[in-house]
Amino acid sequence: TIVEAIRAALAENSRPALTGPGTALIDAPGPLSGRHAVVTSGPTHEPIDPVRYIANRSSGKQGHAIAAALAALGCQVTLVTGPTRLTDPAGVDTIHIESAREMLAAVEAALPADIAVCAAAVADWRPAIEAGQKLKKQPGGALPPDIRLIENPDILRTISAPGPSRPALVVGFAAETEQVLDHARAKRARKGCDWIVANDVSTGTGTFGGDDNAVHLIDADGTDSWPAMTKQAVADRLARRIADHFAAPTTKDSA
Amino acid sequence: TIVEAIRAALAENSRPALTGPGTALIDAPGPLSGRHAVVTSGPTHEPIDPVRYIANRSSGKQGHAIAAALAALGCQVTLVTGPTRLTDPAGVDTIHIESAREMLAAVEAALPADIAVCAAAVADWRPAIEAGQKLKKQPGGALPPDIRLIENPDILRTISAPGPSRPALVVGFAAETEQVLDHARAKRARKGCDWIVANDVSTGTGTFGGDDNAVHLIDADGTDSWPAMTKQAVADRLARRIADHFAAPTTKDSA
Repeated sequence: TIVEAIRAALAENSRPALTGPGTALIDAPGPLSGRHAVVTSGPTHEPIDPVRYIANRSSGKQGHAIAAALAALGCQVTLVTGPTRLTDPAGVDTIHIESAREMLAAVEAALPADIAVCAAAVADWRPAIEAGQKLKKQPGGALPPDIRLIENPDILRTISAPGPSRPALVVGFAAETEQVLDHARAKRARKGCDWIVANDVSTGTGTFGGDDNAVHLIDADGTDSWPAMTKQAVADRLARRIADHFAAPTTKDSA
Repeated sequence: TIVEAIRAALAENSRPALTGPGTALIDAPGPLSGRHAVVTSGPTHEPIDPVRYIANRSSGKQGHAIAAALAALGCQVTLVTGPTRLTDPAGVDTIHIESAREMLAAVEAALPADIAVCAAAVADWRPAIEAGQKLKKQPGGALPPDIRLIENPDILRTISAPGPSRPALVVGFAAETEQVLDHARAKRARKGCDWIVANDVSTGTGTFGGDDNAVHLIDADGTDSWPAMTKQAVADRLARRIADHFAAPTTKDSA
């Protein structure tokens, strides 16, 4: 099965990471030493036929930066990423997938984890039918059938559901084009995750594909709006906040 | 207008190319010196909403290699490319677009040309409606409307239509998953282009995204099947064949 294949790949990947160039990072004592984080990043590609797919504008920069920032604090990190132009972060076990279904299978195979950061822009829907042959123009100009969409698995909600394999801290992302805070707070409640990092991806903000990001961190206590900074700085600040969270167990109830 | 913007960009781009690092290639006497080629490359992205789009698996490797190979023979080359991971070829005026409509506008703005090589994997269809806001999941799990498709402009057929601005030689590409030669010959007749380069992009051939290609060159005289070779070698051979075509005007009637 795909889950077994991913487990095998993880087992394969983790060996060189423990003895190779990433060892220094992983072995370094850090505030997240001994913790395991699963981070998702990038877009998903949802096939229409063998050559066409539905995609989205996520660059993966924010998710990859978070994976690297957590690793720099001593965390063992599994990064599950859709297709991006980025290189795999050093010292991070990176699993490459295309569709939302593959991403969910890879995340579940990577559990247990203390931390899950779902930064990927997972497609909400996929084409209901994946054609086995390339859709071709018809003589007379007849159009192909409308693309009917069906719901993809909800990775953030699945990971957030109570149960023995739920990570202690689940962080979701909300990419919004309007009413950013209202939508993000509703998303946190609906998904059952602990924190939501909300950002505005309206045309013109340059967040998708750009290097900068202005985000709001929403938890049970309220909203913390960070100034605009690079995606790397957002990642570093989020990783430190995660480390503080695990260093202060008495605040766990308000996670 | 977009055409004026592209013309301005072309004028802007062509100046450094004539005096910069590309000068040697462009000024070098070569069999295609004094000729102008327009080459299209890569996929197109057809927007569904501000963050989602329909794409295809074209890497742009073949089209970019053809642009570089023509430039190496002394040709002035305008490359019109969709989003790829590739760097712009040296000595080539490169115009970046996303959608098929933008690609057509950029190609038309680049004319007149002696040669057009349409290697891009232009989307046949685009979503009939581009939503102004990101489509959001609805409470209760209602699905978004089906994606209705409408036909995109046909760049190859448009360029191939008789008229004062038709390039002397128009080369199209046919990416097929079945009955490769039959479909490609029919495409040549239907589009009105001079040559078709046909290849098999079935799952497993590795053509999309890969470095190798096995193609058939179809012209009025028949089919020339080339052995599998790198996309760079296909580009070099095609560029030499184009140069031979222009060096032998008596064979022009059978182009």
